[in-house]
Amino acid sequence: MLVSTLREAPGDAAIISHKLMFRAGLIRKLSNGLFAYLPMGLRVKRKVEQIVREEMNAIGAQEFLLPVVVPGEVWKESGRWTTMGDGMLKVKNRLGQDLVVSPTAEEAITSVIRDELFSYKQLPIVAYQIQTKFRDEIRPRYGVMRGREFTMKDAYSFHGDDKSLDEVYANFARAYRNVFRRCGLTVIPVSADSGAFGGSGSEEFMIESEIGDNTLILCKKCGYAANDEKAGCASDIALDKDGNPQKPTTLPIEKVACAGVETIVQMEEFFKMPASQFIKVLIYRVENSEIDFSSAPGGKSFKKDGNVYPEVFVAVAIRGDLDVNEAKLAALLKASAAELADEENVIKYSGAPHGFVGPVGLTNVPLIVDFSVMEKTDDGFKINVHDTVTGGGVADFDNIHVEPGRDFVPFLTGDIRTVKAGDICPNCGEPFFTKKGNELGHIFKLGTKYAKALKAKFLDENGKEQTPTMGCYGIGIDRTVASIIEENNDENGIIWPMSVAPFSVAVVPIKGEQDSLALAEELYGDLQKRGIEVLLDDRNERPGVKFKDLDLMGIPLRVVISDKTLPDAEVRMRKTGEVEKIPLKEVADFVESTVRSQMESYK
Amino acid sequence: MLVSTLREAPGDAAIISHKLMFRAGLIRKLSNGLFAYLPMGLRVKRKVEQIVREEMNAIGAQEFLLPVVVPGEVWKESGRWTTMGDGMLKVKNRLGQDLVVSPTAEEAITSVIRDELFSYKQLPIVAYQIQTKFRDEIRPRYGVMRGREFTMKDAYSFHGDDKSLDEVYANFARAYRNVFRRCGLTVIPVSADSGAFGGSGSEEFMIESEIGDNTLILCKKCGYAANDEKAGCASDIALDKDGNPQKPTTLPIEKVACAGVETIVQMEEFFKMPASQFIKVLIYRVENSEIDFSSAPGGKSFKKDGNVYPEVFVAVAIRGDLDVNEAKLAALLKASAAELADEENVIKYSGAPHGFVGPVGLTNVPLIVDFSVMEKTDDGFKINVHDTVTGGGVADFDNIHVEPGRDFVPFLTGDIRTVKAGDICPNCGEPFFTKKGNELGHIFKLGTKYAKALKAKFLDENGKEQTPTMGCYGIGIDRTVASIIEENNDENGIIWPMSVAPFSVAVVPIKGEQDSLALAEELYGDLQKRGIEVLLDDRNERPGVKFKDLDLMGIPLRVVISDKTLPDAEVRMRKTGEVEKIPLKEVADFVESTVRSQMESYK
Repeated sequence: MLVSTLREAPGDAAIISHKLMFRAGLIRKLSNGLFAYLPMGLRVKRKVEQIVREEMNAIGAQEFLLPVVVPGEVWKESGRWTTMGDGMLKVKNRLGQDLVVSPTAEEAITSVIRDELFSYKQLPIVAYQIQTKFRDEIRPRYGVMRGREFTMKDAYSFHGDDKSLDEVYANFARAYRNVFRRCGLTVIPVSADSGAFGGSGSEEFMIESEIGDNTLILCKKCGYAANDEKAGCASDIALDKDGNPQKPTTLPIEKVACAGVETIVQMEEFFKMPASQFIKVLIYRVENSEIDFSSAPGGKSFKKDGNVYPEVFVAVAIRGDLDVNEAKLAALLKASAAELADEENVIKYSGAPHGFVGPVGLTNVPLIVDFSVMEKTDDGFKINVHDTVTGGGVADFDNIHVEPGRDFVPFLTGDIRTVKAGDICPNCGEPFFTKKGNELGHIFKLGTKYAKALKAKFLDENGKEQTPTMGCYGIGIDRTVASIIEENNDENGIIWPMSVAPFSVAVVPIKGEQDSLALAEELYGDLQKRGIEVLLDDRNERPGVKFKDLDLMGIPLRVVISDKTLPDAEVRMRKTGEVEKIPLKEVADFVESTVRSQMESYK
Repeated sequence: MLVSTLREAPGDAAIISHKLMFRAGLIRKLSNGLFAYLPMGLRVKRKVEQIVREEMNAIGAQEFLLPVVVPGEVWKESGRWTTMGDGMLKVKNRLGQDLVVSPTAEEAITSVIRDELFSYKQLPIVAYQIQTKFRDEIRPRYGVMRGREFTMKDAYSFHGDDKSLDEVYANFARAYRNVFRRCGLTVIPVSADSGAFGGSGSEEFMIESEIGDNTLILCKKCGYAANDEKAGCASDIALDKDGNPQKPTTLPIEKVACAGVETIVQMEEFFKMPASQFIKVLIYRVENSEIDFSSAPGGKSFKKDGNVYPEVFVAVAIRGDLDVNEAKLAALLKASAAELADEENVIKYSGAPHGFVGPVGLTNVPLIVDFSVMEKTDDGFKINVHDTVTGGGVADFDNIHVEPGRDFVPFLTGDIRTVKAGDICPNCGEPFFTKKGNELGHIFKLGTKYAKALKAKFLDENGKEQTPTMGCYGIGIDRTVASIIEENNDENGIIWPMSVAPFSVAVVPIKGEQDSLALAEELYGDLQKRGIEVLLDDRNERPGVKFKDLDLMGIPLRVVISDKTLPDAEVRMRKTGEVEKIPLKEVADFVESTVRSQMESYK
């Protein structure tokens, strides 16, 4: 076996799992975000895959295997050929055919299933695969935690009705909890925004991580847990500078010259008012929105492609002390992405440069307003801020005494604020706290989006043609491996849970008077016969080097045979450092029962 | 389980395995050459992979996993970035990086190993992976037999000396025989041309197939077996029209007007001579030759890139009744490919149109001559044809009385003829016969080509830096699955060998007075507990439909439980059609022992 431990991690390794996966010889880098698994790492990866496979089979999911490279056609049918963005690796082959190196497989599986599906009797169909995916990350980092190529278990379910989807969704929710428990991981299940994937009803399985991509909004009291891309909070009424609820004004809007006063902090100083009395207006560029803008200001000039607007610009108003959450904004606008517009478009659409954009008199652009400012109701608006200060709509001027509803009306209102630590839980009134997290798994109800687009159909009990509803369920395998290391390590290296350890035990003979190598080989053979995965460290190295390597590699049990230990062997637990002397004859029994009972504890 | 049997195979299915893989619901097509494995097919594929894995592990090979998408840099280091041709799928990512969807992995594994290798003590290193590959076939066909994306077991070995390579190569030769035997396959191991892969010492594992890509040259008497891209044959001396050995002539060359006499058949009629007295000269376009042409006619004008000529043209002379083998020509010229030149280049380099090209007076192009005409010896040439007829070197004229050696000298001579059925075995003198074959596996000694190009090095016993020598070993997994079907089927469908069957046994309850479903479920549970892979066909279908499907799917054993069979069950062997009545209580024992003994027979 090629043992490739390193004293030093590569310079670009910023997190512990990345460092340890290199140092322990689990992976090597071919290029940014492209990794080779060495034998020690592959053993762990395969174990994680097998745990996932067992839990998938246990809920009746069936394993398929779709190609990594798929025809562009199915992506064109769903419309995601254009909406997936540059993260999807497209390639034309020598015959000019469009191909995609799959970033996900909703289209491919739906195109396979639609040809097999004809009757409600076949439903539900629950398909999964464990297969290579590729996403062209701009900045791949943290090793396999955010690589370009990775292995995913992706599953897709097809149903005749929502009840069936609910059942299977619940099965997956349970199976995912089993998977992560069996891998020795503590996950935080949170509700999530399902973003460009469409649909609603989703849960993300998060692992706490200082370098997490996600901010988790958590409530200590009631257990509320959500991704900040979806989290809501209790509405809070803005107070004026004296701490009283703001009051409507009857004063007309007044323009105030305030050149140089551009940021909220500058405005607070200049107007001597809290930011909660300002309305901040920002121009956003929105991609692939499915909202009908035809009746909105400026809407007539927006270009439509089918029922999608590839690019529109909107003005977004929010209370001055709050931030717009782009994911929530995109979800409200049924869009694939929303980002701040560049200065040219800010001026084009609002008439003012950034910092002086206001909500009043916007005629070229739809105005989207956060609930912190106002909420559309059945019979008008509930106004949540009054007598506000806003940008003046021209450079170097602000407006004061602006009344929402009186001075401007929105095209759309919604909850698009970024929820932060300290905001109030809508369930129980407790203030939220936050954690950074990485997503290991994601389950969500897709609805009929892909089935409709790809024309999957079946005949129901009454012989009527119906569209199946779908669910979609993913687990990142490599990321799970890295996360296990993040949660199970110490200053000496990895501490593998028995369930995923590359080997359960290492046998280490140490040269001396007695033939420890022969005894070690005998024990090695015995353990192999018992079905125990055992490593024999017969390298010609000093004991200290071997011990260091084995600690680094995280093998759960170490058995040393030497002049010092004989007639016993010394068994050491990697996790606790506990050492036991066991008579050599009994070692195999002891190791086997230890391994089996630890394995059992992860079932 | 989604059972997706079809009455009809798709129209483009030309061979039995392609038809049956679709009809039995093993695969579905996403696009030309891109297939999805349905659960039934994936089970077989995984079994073949597992057999391969076990045989690899048994010879001490270690499993790695390289990414499917690899950086273009390593391909540039080896030079194959330009020489692999359009079959390699290249793609630029959003950052402009060159990427390759791996068609093979010599470069990638060598780039990983070179960073780990420092001492002879680590050698040999034998690495394998079972991973997705992509080759952009122009005409993918025959289902997974020639797909664009496919799974390969590819292995690479690194050695300190040739003796170690020989040993490991022999291990692979043995392991490959085991793999195919365990899969129920009859393979023909043949020596092979290793083409663009470089190196020598290689063996291909062929399966007989009417649609085979390869022509196998076989000798009944001594067992000689070779791919026609490499096969040699005993040299035969050409005879004149009277059946006597040809004699040298002292007559000078004479030009004969023969407009319209272009083909060999036309020449035989016109000159009243056998084709064996003609010399046929053809102009070839040769890619990426590593021969030094600097001293050859026209060689000065050839453009060189490093030590490679990306494109050169050569004239090739061969006896009139024989054909040039392009693979052998390419191998002789250390080139990646050789193909007939277009008419424009034929005239440019030879001065004559196709049909009138001759060997005399060629000054712009190197002349390569087959051993059937002459052989370079230490002290000149051995001339094998005399007083020949050749193209005249200008349109509408041939030359007669042309003497090789006297009238022209070659730049290079070699064995480049296509060996055919009836040619004589060089070992034993028996005439060859031929078969069409498909390659399932290939083992070859690479030498130091990749290690040198990628600068892999180690320190030998004396502390001296050395380049490791390499071996390379592949098995096409999907092609193996298809070949098993080609060899194991009848008019009713597939007949899986027990070792790779998706399920070992199907239990089929048939509705009647007695509760056959409950009894079948009990048996199903019992067999599962015994570790037997069992399918319960509880579909609401007529018995005839179920039997037809199970025959088509090729499940080795079928157990029927019905009013008619009870208190017995009826056990039927798919392969022989043999039926046995077994008391229900004993069926599980019977099935288990049958399955286990058949499994054992493939060990």
